[in-house]
Amino acid sequence: MIILFTDFGLTGPYVGQVKAVLYQRAPGVPVVDLFADAPTHDPRASAYLLASFRDAFPAGSVFECVVDPGVGSARAALAVEADGCWFVGPDNGLFEPILRRAAHWSAWALGPGTGRVSPTFHGRDLFAPAAARLALGQTPDSFGARPVEPLRCTDWPDDLAEVVYVDHFGNLATGLRAAKLPETTILLLSGRRLHRARTYADVPRGEAFWYENSNGLVEIAVNSGRAADRLTAGLGTEVLIEREN
Amino acid sequence: MIILFTDFGLTGPYVGQVKAVLYQRAPGVPVVDLFADAPTHDPRASAYLLASFRDAFPAGSVFECVVDPGVGSARAALAVEADGCWFVGPDNGLFEPILRRAAHWSAWALGPGTGRVSPTFHGRDLFAPAAARLALGQTPDSFGARPVEPLRCTDWPDDLAEVVYVDHFGNLATGLRAAKLPETTILLLSGRRLHRARTYADVPRGEAFWYENSNGLVEIAVNSGRAADRLTAGLGTEVLIEREN
Amino acid sequence: MIILFTDFGLTGPYVGQVKAVLYQRAPGVPVVDLFADAPTHDPRASAYLLASFRDAFPAGSVFECVVDPGVGSARAALAVEADGCWFVGPDNGLFEPILRRAAHWSAWALGPGTGRVSPTFHGRDLFAPAAARLALGQTPDSFGARPVEPLRCTDWPDDLAEVVYVDHFGNLATGLRAAKLPETTILLLSGRRLHRARTYADVPRGEAFWYENSNGLVEIAVNSGRAADRLTAGLGTEVLIEREN
Repeated sequence: MIILFTDFGLTGPYVGQVKAVLYQRAPGVPVVDLFADAPTHDPRASAYLLASFRDAFPAGSVFECVVDPGVGSARAALAVEADGCWFVGPDNGLFEPILRRAAHWSAWALGPGTGRVSPTFHGRDLFAPAAARLALGQTPDSFGARPVEPLRCTDWPDDLAEVVYVDHFGNLATGLRAAKLPETTILLLSGRRLHRARTYADVPRGEAFWYENSNGLVEIAVNSGRAADRLTAGLGTEVLIEREN
Repeated sequence: MIILFTDFGLTGPYVGQVKAVLYQRAPGVPVVDLFADAPTHDPRASAYLLASFRDAFPAGSVFECVVDPGVGSARAALAVEADGCWFVGPDNGLFEPILRRAAHWSAWALGPGTGRVSPTFHGRDLFAPAAARLALGQTPDSFGARPVEPLRCTDWPDDLAEVVYVDHFGNLATGLRAAKLPETTILLLSGRRLHRARTYADVPRGEAFWYENSNGLVEIAVNSGRAADRLTAGLGTEVLIEREN
Repeated sequence: MIILFTDFGLTGPYVGQVKAVLYQRAPGVPVVDLFADAPTHDPRASAYLLASFRDAFPAGSVFECVVDPGVGSARAALAVEADGCWFVGPDNGLFEPILRRAAHWSAWALGPGTGRVSPTFHGRDLFAPAAARLALGQTPDSFGARPVEPLRCTDWPDDLAEVVYVDHFGNLATGLRAAKLPETTILLLSGRRLHRARTYADVPRGEAFWYENSNGLVEIAVNSGRAADRLTAGLGTEVLIEREN
């Protein structure tokens, strides 16, 4: 299975063009559109979001991940193997939390590609062909990639106490893993104190709360309302953890 | 064929995660994205919209339908067989018009699911596995579902005289079936009297009219314009039928 | 491979319904969503956009193209073969640049279709069945289409010096082919003089420039910014070419 995680947007031809390459080069391999609206030009927020989906896919899955404001610059193009899954994308920190949480990982730098490679669309011309080859079971060495030390973002936290995604319902996903927080934790967002609940229907209509979302992240929601509007929060809004005494 | 009808939104990971489950559990079965923007948190409007697509798909099709503000609460999870097609989703009225119009139907309550079931994402963890099994020809009994009486919404009308969907062109689909109305019917919406036409090009540019849309519903449009803007109407706007004398 | 190029919008059921027909009638043929947001009701801008994607797909590809404000009127429904690829859609100029740039082409008028054909959804009921047949290797003659002279738009330019698409990043694609312009060409848009660069990272942050996009068109962008906002430009904004002396 090939999973697409990009900031290409839902509109326009970009995702379609990537899929056309994948369908041609890896016929019969299912392609899943996971995100086309990852935080635009923001590899850091995108990295914590991406890492939360890591465990939902079976071993052997190939993630093509493109949040890449530096496309066409000197930044390397990576293929990373981490605990049995592949990640292909730019060397800009996008895989930092995945590397940090992996038991075992290895990284390769992709070659310059064959044929015409557009300097503004490595997702189609460089990453998609590599993802297709990995999905077919080829090794990076077999198509000219060489072992590399990826960029490390040592100043990034293990969990990011910020909103990293606002969904269709106005729910606010953060870069915090719920399993790291005691059940009784109270969060502060936009000056509001938020208690934990299990699901929307467990709190009164219109009330804000936090919960473990379906991928293990701390998410903030309002029952039958839009948390983003109600709490005047969005991508990058900071979350404070009120520690118990 | 598995058809997805949800209010998950086009953005974000939800539809992709459902499809990843379907691709893994029902390999080779085509999955059609019919709606990801059904009326949010509105099972009633969604129900009349859904019912209009019923006949466009072949016998044996499986509809996974999720408009489910009560996810994680005590509401049952259903599998319904109606006139040869399957419908999987929450027991909140979403299938009411389908049941009412079906010659024969049966309903089962799904079990609690196997593995980890997120209380906020039954679409992925409960409904998708059931849809995959039905698409493979398994019976509900074979995977632990038991016959049930679904919730009936006896106070809902047979046809809903409201706008149930506003499309990309600003056209206003209603919950009324066109075949139930005489050709000469005049409709009233936002105080405007609307005559019937066959297609956009049959009325002058800028003129509002009603027509039978491609799924049999009464739809209101403006030739080369946006009816939603021109008539200041949206989801839930009431339609009045001016009866002939 | 079947490629969808429409103005149906990402929301709503239209693309899904077309794909349901294709999956049923051409099982196993990959379907690529290239554009669902081509310029709405604007066959001219759409035509130059579509033509730029022509060469990215292999011989034998079938493009179903629907930008069709005259759906249901007397305009013909076309199947065009141009240099080894098929194009199915309305006879309203949408294929004009493709015809003009092709070494060899032929055109057929589709018959009225079989079964129920909605006067407002030829994309599903007329063009999709034809696209499926062509993808399976059938000839237009075999399903009742007859040779025809398509509408020609002789007053349209070879390259359209206008914005024909604004993407998710606010980049402005034009109908000009970059290969036709010298490297040193300066463009004028909204009164701003724009030099050519190779990729975003080659200009300072916040600076506007033009470049050859990944499909060969002249595109205007701002490094780490939205050109549409910065230059107050959108679909239809004129581009002037400052000729060298």
